[in-house]
Amino acid sequence: MNVTSVSPLEALSRVLTDDMDRVNALIRTRMMSENAPRIPEVTAHLIEAGGKRIRPMLTLAAARLCGYEGEDHVKLAATVEFIHTATLLHDDVVDESGQRRGRPTANLLWDNKSSVLVGDYLFARAFQLMVEPGNLRALSILSNAAAVIAEGEVLQLTAAQNIATTEDTYMTVIRGKTAALFSAATQVGPVITGAPEEQVQAMFDYGDALGICFQIVDDYLDYGGAGTAIGKNLGDDFRERKLTLPVIRAIAAADASERAFWERTIARGQQDEGDLESAMALMEKHGALASTRQAALDWAARARAALAPLPAHPLKDMLADLSDFVVERVN
Amino acid sequence: MNVTSVSPLEALSRVLTDDMDRVNALIRTRMMSENAPRIPEVTAHLIEAGGKRIRPMLTLAAARLCGYEGEDHVKLAATVEFIHTATLLHDDVVDESGQRRGRPTANLLWDNKSSVLVGDYLFARAFQLMVEPGNLRALSILSNAAAVIAEGEVLQLTAAQNIATTEDTYMTVIRGKTAALFSAATQVGPVITGAPEEQVQAMFDYGDALGICFQIVDDYLDYGGAGTAIGKNLGDDFRERKLTLPVIRAIAAADASERAFWERTIARGQQDEGDLESAMALMEKHGALASTRQAALDWAARARAALAPLPAHPLKDMLADLSDFVVERVN
Repeated sequence: MNVTSVSPLEALSRVLTDDMDRVNALIRTRMMSENAPRIPEVTAHLIEAGGKRIRPMLTLAAARLCGYEGEDHVKLAATVEFIHTATLLHDDVVDESGQRRGRPTANLLWDNKSSVLVGDYLFARAFQLMVEPGNLRALSILSNAAAVIAEGEVLQLTAAQNIATTEDTYMTVIRGKTAALFSAATQVGPVITGAPEEQVQAMFDYGDALGICFQIVDDYLDYGGAGTAIGKNLGDDFRERKLTLPVIRAIAAADASERAFWERTIARGQQDEGDLESAMALMEKHGALASTRQAALDWAARARAALAPLPAHPLKDMLADLSDFVVERVN
Repeated sequence: MNVTSVSPLEALSRVLTDDMDRVNALIRTRMMSENAPRIPEVTAHLIEAGGKRIRPMLTLAAARLCGYEGEDHVKLAATVEFIHTATLLHDDVVDESGQRRGRPTANLLWDNKSSVLVGDYLFARAFQLMVEPGNLRALSILSNAAAVIAEGEVLQLTAAQNIATTEDTYMTVIRGKTAALFSAATQVGPVITGAPEEQVQAMFDYGDALGICFQIVDDYLDYGGAGTAIGKNLGDDFRERKLTLPVIRAIAAADASERAFWERTIARGQQDEGDLESAMALMEKHGALASTRQAALDWAARARAALAPLPAHPLKDMLADLSDFVVERVN
C-alpha cells in the first residue's frame, strides 16, 4: 500500500519525469501542422487542459519495469496519448458534450467539423508515430486497440436507450471504449523490451483490469460523485440515456412501476425535472451504486494481482498502488 | 490512346478481375464486426453503392505493372479503399451532405454519430490491414497519406469562405484531400515489389498528377456538369462556400461590383435564388471554367508523362489512358 504522502500517480510521475518530459515535447512537435494552424489550436486546448497523462505513463512504466533501455517507449507513449485525444474529440461530438476536464469542449469552442477532422489528424499522427519504431507486434497491438475502441463506441451508441442491455454488453463496451487502450498501453512496454511472454500477458491483464476499473469508477461517479471532481456534470450519462452499470443493476431489480420509470426516461427519453434524483434514489434503494463500487474494487484487486509475474521493482509497487488509487475516487 | 470500345477503367477492371474479387472479398470480411452490427450496415451502404474502386485498382495495377507476384497488394488495396470510405463518411458529416453516389448519405440515413464512429472503425481496420504485410516503408507511406488527407480537410475547412484563398492553398488542399491517397495507392505497388527507386518515384508522380487531375475535374463539374452524372448536386461547393479553382480564378479577375458579389455570397454566405447562376455567368465571362478544364488536361498529360520510366506493359498503357479518361468527364 501507498505509505508516502504523494499519490501513486504523482509518485509515477516523479520517477518518470525525464521520460514524460520527452513524451510531452514529442506531443507538442507532432501536433503541429505547417498548413493548418487550426490543428494545433484545437489539439492544444485539449492536450494542455491538464489531463493526467495516465495512459502514456503506463507505457513508460511498463517498459521501464521490464528493463527497457531504448528510446521507442517515448514514441509509443505519445502514440497512446494521441489516440486517446483523438477519441476524446470524437466522443464530445457524438455525446454533444459541452464540458470536458472542467472546460468548454472543442466542438463548442470551434465546431463539430473541426473536432472530427482534427481527431482524424491525430489518429493519423498516432499511426505515423507508432510506425517509426518498426516493431510489428507493437503496431499490431495498437492498431487492434484502435479498432476495438471504435467498435466499443459504436456498440455503446446502439446500446444506448435499450433497457434490455446486459452486463455482458456493458463489459464489451467498456473493454472497448476504455480498457483496450489501457491494455495496449501497458502491453507494448514488455513487447518492445522483448520481455518473456509471461510478462507481456501480465502487463496486458494489468492494463485490462485497470481500464475496466477506471471506467466503472467513472460510471459510478456520474451518479455518485460531485460534478467538479470529474470535470463533467452529474447525470450526464442519464441525460444521454447510457446503459451504465448502476442503471443496468437498478433496472435488473426494478418492480413494474420502476420499470415504467426506466422505460420512460431511458428508452423513450422523456425526462422531467426531478427524474435524475428519482433514478439515483432507485439505485440507492437496490444497492446498485454500492455494488458498482464493489465491482470497481474487485477489478482493482485483479489489476494488482495481475502484476505477480513481473520482477520486483519500485515501479511495480507504484502500479499496484495505482489500482487502489483509481478506486479511491469513489470513497 | 484508347482505341478499343471499353473505357480504360473497364479495361483495368477486366485485367485485374481476379485481384479485385479478392480485394472485394477482403473488404466484406474486414468490415464485419462481431459486436456492433451497425458497423457493416453503414459500411455496406457506402461500399456497395457502386463506387468505381479506382484507388484499390491503382494499387493492384501499380504492383502488377512492376512485376509483383505476392499476395500483399490485395491487403494494401483494401487498406486504401477503407481509408477512402472512412474519409467519405467523415466528409459527409463535415459538409452536411445529403447525397453521395446518387443515394442518401449515411449521416442522413442513420446519424452523424454513426458516421463519425464507423469512419473511425474503418480507419482502424485500414491500419490493421496495412500492418499485416509487415512492410515498414508501405506503412510509412500510407500513414503519412492519412495525416496529409486530414490536414488537407482541415485546411479546406478553414479556407472556406475566405475569398483571399490563393491557388497555392487550393493545390495544398487538393493534394491533401485527394492526391495524397492516389499517390500512396500507386507508390506502395513498386514499394512492396522492391522495384527500383526510379519506378517508385514514377508511380508516386503518376498518382499525384492523376489525383490532382481527378479533383480539378470534380471541382469543374460542380459548376459545369449535370448533377446526376457525378451523383451530387450542381452548386454544392457554392452553397458550402468552398474556394475551388473556378471560383478562385473568377475572383482573381473580378471588378469591384463582382467582388462585392463574391464577398456577399462566399465570404458572408448571403445566398439568394439566382446567385448560383450569376456565379456561373461570372466564371463564364472570365473563362474560369475553360481555364480550369485546361488545368485538368495539363495534369492528365503530366500523369501520362510520369509513367515513362516504367517497363512496357499492357497495364502501363491502361494507366496512361486512364488519365485522359478522368478528364473526359469535362468534355
